[in-house]
Amino acid sequence: MARSALIAVGGNSLIRAGEKGVISEQLANARRTAAAVVGLLDDEWRIVLTHGNGPQVGAALLRSERASDQVYGQPLDVCDAATQGEIGYLLQQSLCNELGAAGKQMHVATILTQVVVSPDDPAMKNPTKPVGPFYSREDAEEKARLLGWQIVEDAARGYRRVVPSPEPIAVVEEDVIRKLLAQGVLLIAAGGGGIPVVREGERLRGIEAVIDKDRVAALLALRLGVDLFVISTDADAVYLDYKKPTQRRLDRVTCDELEQHHRDRQFPPGNMGPKVESAIRFLRGGGREVIITCYEQLLDAVRGTAGTHVVAEQGK
Amino acid sequence: MARSALIAVGGNSLIRAGEKGVISEQLANARRTAAAVVGLLDDEWRIVLTHGNGPQVGAALLRSERASDQVYGQPLDVCDAATQGEIGYLLQQSLCNELGAAGKQMHVATILTQVVVSPDDPAMKNPTKPVGPFYSREDAEEKARLLGWQIVEDAARGYRRVVPSPEPIAVVEEDVIRKLLAQGVLLIAAGGGGIPVVREGERLRGIEAVIDKDRVAALLALRLGVDLFVISTDADAVYLDYKKPTQRRLDRVTCDELEQHHRDRQFPPGNMGPKVESAIRFLRGGGREVIITCYEQLLDAVRGTAGTHVVAEQGK
Repeated sequence: MARSALIAVGGNSLIRAGEKGVISEQLANARRTAAAVVGLLDDEWRIVLTHGNGPQVGAALLRSERASDQVYGQPLDVCDAATQGEIGYLLQQSLCNELGAAGKQMHVATILTQVVVSPDDPAMKNPTKPVGPFYSREDAEEKARLLGWQIVEDAARGYRRVVPSPEPIAVVEEDVIRKLLAQGVLLIAAGGGGIPVVREGERLRGIEAVIDKDRVAALLALRLGVDLFVISTDADAVYLDYKKPTQRRLDRVTCDELEQHHRDRQFPPGNMGPKVESAIRFLRGGGREVIITCYEQLLDAVRGTAGTHVVAEQGK
Repeated sequence: MARSALIAVGGNSLIRAGEKGVISEQLANARRTAAAVVGLLDDEWRIVLTHGNGPQVGAALLRSERASDQVYGQPLDVCDAATQGEIGYLLQQSLCNELGAAGKQMHVATILTQVVVSPDDPAMKNPTKPVGPFYSREDAEEKARLLGWQIVEDAARGYRRVVPSPEPIAVVEEDVIRKLLAQGVLLIAAGGGGIPVVREGERLRGIEAVIDKDRVAALLALRLGVDLFVISTDADAVYLDYKKPTQRRLDRVTCDELEQHHRDRQFPPGNMGPKVESAIRFLRGGGREVIITCYEQLLDAVRGTAGTHVVAEQGK
């Protein structure tokens, strides 16, 4: 009987530290990620991949602004949609190719995904997530005046727009993703945390916001009822006292233990923190097991010999 | 028993003549197209939509170039993928909304689509399709030298890059589209003629080319075996002697008759010509019926009281 996994591939699956995102580089990285994912199929996993879009959507916003004197501009939700196409394509083609190289027959599909947030989410009145280019103070103030943007000063690099980061409530395309997963299609979905939309009666409307991609991955994993939620990141595992002399690796922990370490501020907000929080969400919501690892160790981690395994209760 | 239709929505489904493509305009147009499509569902049609991407991919290429000093550039295949995301999103959200307004329960999905062409296609050595921005002669010559572009002079507006327009051979995601169509999902696929790829052994590789969207629509319609292929365009029907005193509307013609009119040069190459050619391809390939009409008359046309109906043989 096939088991199902949702794998949240990290930002480094396409653009690694120090790279500028040249498409040939992104394809080379996508190929490595795809090879790791395809390796899992021997063990009969059914897989949904989610991914981030940080550098790509930043580039899209900058391109849109630079060319706005010549062609129509793209608001953030449209840029998100475009990056789901762009990144989905690179991952999908790489998966097709690695399947072919491994002599495996399997369909691959990218599902454009909208994620519903609440217009009453407290985050909507308190934008915190920086997006797009850096500006001088004067330019930033003009943007704020003309476009109603909220602006923050970003450590020594200038001024930047901030948008809300509301909680994901529902994945609009959940049922389609579920159908295809049940049929053994290898899926890419909810890229970049999904395209943020609000419900207005029966209608959906796109908004300019960023939904945390790890939270969306946890939500989708729960809604699909997958057996395993894998968070692929830079680190091979979760560490306590990271980069201190007392550093130690977590091989297997319960959700309660991980939560206690998180309360002890073991995991930095911009890095391992969101991964750990998503793992806890998934397990608290009824999920059974989460693995946090890097793509190089994905197969070993899923087979039980690498990565950090977080389980609902000890012994399970 | 549900019947199936592939509807190739026209360029005007998102950006109409004279519009600049501001997203609010594109959404308003998408809403009208979506309302027409949703109207068909009362008659139990299962539907795949395809769409063009001309203005959107032109804008994407221009944005990529304008910002190439700051962020990574996007080759044409990546721009195509991004526009499938962008346009798919606007159409998909509009379809969701019109379904909601009509009180209909139906899933909607956009399938990122790659289309295979042959590296040996004669078109590959004879690029004819202009794409992207206009350049001065000096800039165009520099692009040609640095990037190996083929350049043509474009009537009084400057110089422009041309890329090959090869024949579509296969739709990589055909089986996924077929599965979802069979399950009654309202689909958007093969946007912009698909992302052009070539096969190199078992691998796919994206190329910089434009595949005619009407040809891809005909190919996909045939491969899916749909009952009806609808080509939505600016005109409510196909006309003979268009805009002449002798103008007359074609209500119902056989494929042979339409082909004869086409040989008689009744249909201009940049306009109705490709629609007519795709209709003929579909019918010659085994398809039963094609309708050419505008989205405003879509429902009436499918019910038989509007548009031009092209059938394989008279009386069928």
